[in-house]
Amino acid sequence: MAGRRCLVTGGLGFIGANLALALARADADVTVVDACYPRHGANPFNLEAEGGAAVRRVTADLADPAARAALDGAELVFNLAGQVSHVDSMNDPVFDLDVNTRSQVAFLEALRWAAPGATVVFTSTRQLFGRPKYLPVDEEHPVNPVDVNGITKHAAEQFHRLYHDVHGLRTSVVRLTNVFGPRQRLRDDFQGFLPIFIRRALLGQPISLFGDGSQERDCLYVDDVVDCLVRAATCGDAVGEVFNVGNDEHLPLKTIADLIVGAAGSGSVEMVPWPPDRDAIDIGSYFGDSSKAKRTLGWTPATTFAEGIERTVAFYRAHLDRYL
Amino acid sequence: MAGRRCLVTGGLGFIGANLALALARADADVTVVDACYPRHGANPFNLEAEGGAAVRRVTADLADPAARAALDGAELVFNLAGQVSHVDSMNDPVFDLDVNTRSQVAFLEALRWAAPGATVVFTSTRQLFGRPKYLPVDEEHPVNPVDVNGITKHAAEQFHRLYHDVHGLRTSVVRLTNVFGPRQRLRDDFQGFLPIFIRRALLGQPISLFGDGSQERDCLYVDDVVDCLVRAATCGDAVGEVFNVGNDEHLPLKTIADLIVGAAGSGSVEMVPWPPDRDAIDIGSYFGDSSKAKRTLGWTPATTFAEGIERTVAFYRAHLDRYL
Repeated sequence: MAGRRCLVTGGLGFIGANLALALARADADVTVVDACYPRHGANPFNLEAEGGAAVRRVTADLADPAARAALDGAELVFNLAGQVSHVDSMNDPVFDLDVNTRSQVAFLEALRWAAPGATVVFTSTRQLFGRPKYLPVDEEHPVNPVDVNGITKHAAEQFHRLYHDVHGLRTSVVRLTNVFGPRQRLRDDFQGFLPIFIRRALLGQPISLFGDGSQERDCLYVDDVVDCLVRAATCGDAVGEVFNVGNDEHLPLKTIADLIVGAAGSGSVEMVPWPPDRDAIDIGSYFGDSSKAKRTLGWTPATTFAEGIERTVAFYRAHLDRYL
Repeated sequence: MAGRRCLVTGGLGFIGANLALALARADADVTVVDACYPRHGANPFNLEAEGGAAVRRVTADLADPAARAALDGAELVFNLAGQVSHVDSMNDPVFDLDVNTRSQVAFLEALRWAAPGATVVFTSTRQLFGRPKYLPVDEEHPVNPVDVNGITKHAAEQFHRLYHDVHGLRTSVVRLTNVFGPRQRLRDDFQGFLPIFIRRALLGQPISLFGDGSQERDCLYVDDVVDCLVRAATCGDAVGEVFNVGNDEHLPLKTIADLIVGAAGSGSVEMVPWPPDRDAIDIGSYFGDSSKAKRTLGWTPATTFAEGIERTVAFYRAHLDRYL
């Protein structure tokens, strides 16, 4: 990646910052664009690490002219900017649409003129599949979002595909399962179950599991996601494609919580009944089929959940005050 | 429908105005909301007809407070507002998203508070299926839009379904095929092939068909669509459902053009090669499977294309200056 001009949108957030640091350490020329919206994942401390000093920072929504200016000369665009909280998406759906779809359309229009030859990797979410009709969920699985976030991210995916098909942009889509690791916002309960579990364990609080905790999930350690995104950006066969990126290690939520409590050495796990307002958006078990990503990108996750959570806990033990 | 409080969004447009007039003639209490955007279908003359004098008019985007105010006391909401030009959607994608998705989300939020018990029929489009994988296209057919309009309308559909599933709104979705009849904008070439063909024939101009004109389409006369929408709004079993609404009469584009020229008594048909910029969004033949709509709503189209086009031509012969 040495010398390659990379733009990372959402680059002050969890995955974006880990990616930007990895690219900078590989001597890429890295710019991050981040709107720094409150409650989203942006955290300036995320780039206070090896490689971070070389990363240029632009504070902008993707629809802003500053984001377009940042595209000048970009070769590889890692498009991670977005609102990821499904709770917030249900409470403020117009803002979710604005951030996750409208700004993405404006950014794709800017790409057409400012960097038409760039390769663009858009990160999407397993959330758009809703309750799986079968497991593991592959790319042919019907899309059936059960929350606003799933609708708005899916629309943004479709725009990326359309701009490839009609305008020739070199776009691909990577649909991520639950990701964990250093630099994730832990402050509140709006960004998925893993940061909630990790925070509660680190603070010595109980982790509440709805139902019996038997629903299975596949989780990815952030370094494996970074590896996948870099491969997608540099693999010609990825252009125009969509990839479901999950993990063959499927764990019940109860096991995930127990492993987190074990790694933290604090906290506990308790079972509670499903609250009625969550029941409508429960999806049961979910795990993805990553065969296409493995085949096309030569990617495979290298980190077990137990290994990843040990590293994650070690990071937050040193920096917890920066993430609460 | 006597006395029932009906709101028709996009009610100065083609289908909306025909619907509003039909409701008013059935003694319903009718309000139309229309943003009257240039190039869209709104035409004040559309309500200068029997029943039109009793229809209240509100000029507003669905995201405006005036649209929310118009919801007060509404029992039946016919939600037809939108941008329908796929050419315009490709040229100005952010505006298409704003009108077709963002304003719809704001309107659904308004519905939650201003008219949570209303029944809502949202009109969508066959455009979201893209190139059919099989024919006729039923509700299980994968969604694969090949233009911006298909993406934005599909997202709005998903929001209507989500607001039913999660918030209990009484929504349904009717996906229309190509519709024709009186009160359709004929002025330019941006709103589908039928108004283009009709205008050119009436003006004695040639109708250009791309390729050999063998691609088949199903067309619906607007009165049959009005009948379908009223049934959807008054059938309890329609709530939460999506219906593909097409016609079992499938006609090659060449036959459609010939019938229009025949009815008009003017114009001609000529074959031309596919222009390259249209090729990327060509979908081949399309016709829908309306079995579910027929079964659930007791609906069936009553008008052949030949009958409908005779009535259409008669209308425009009398009022062509109002539609050019």
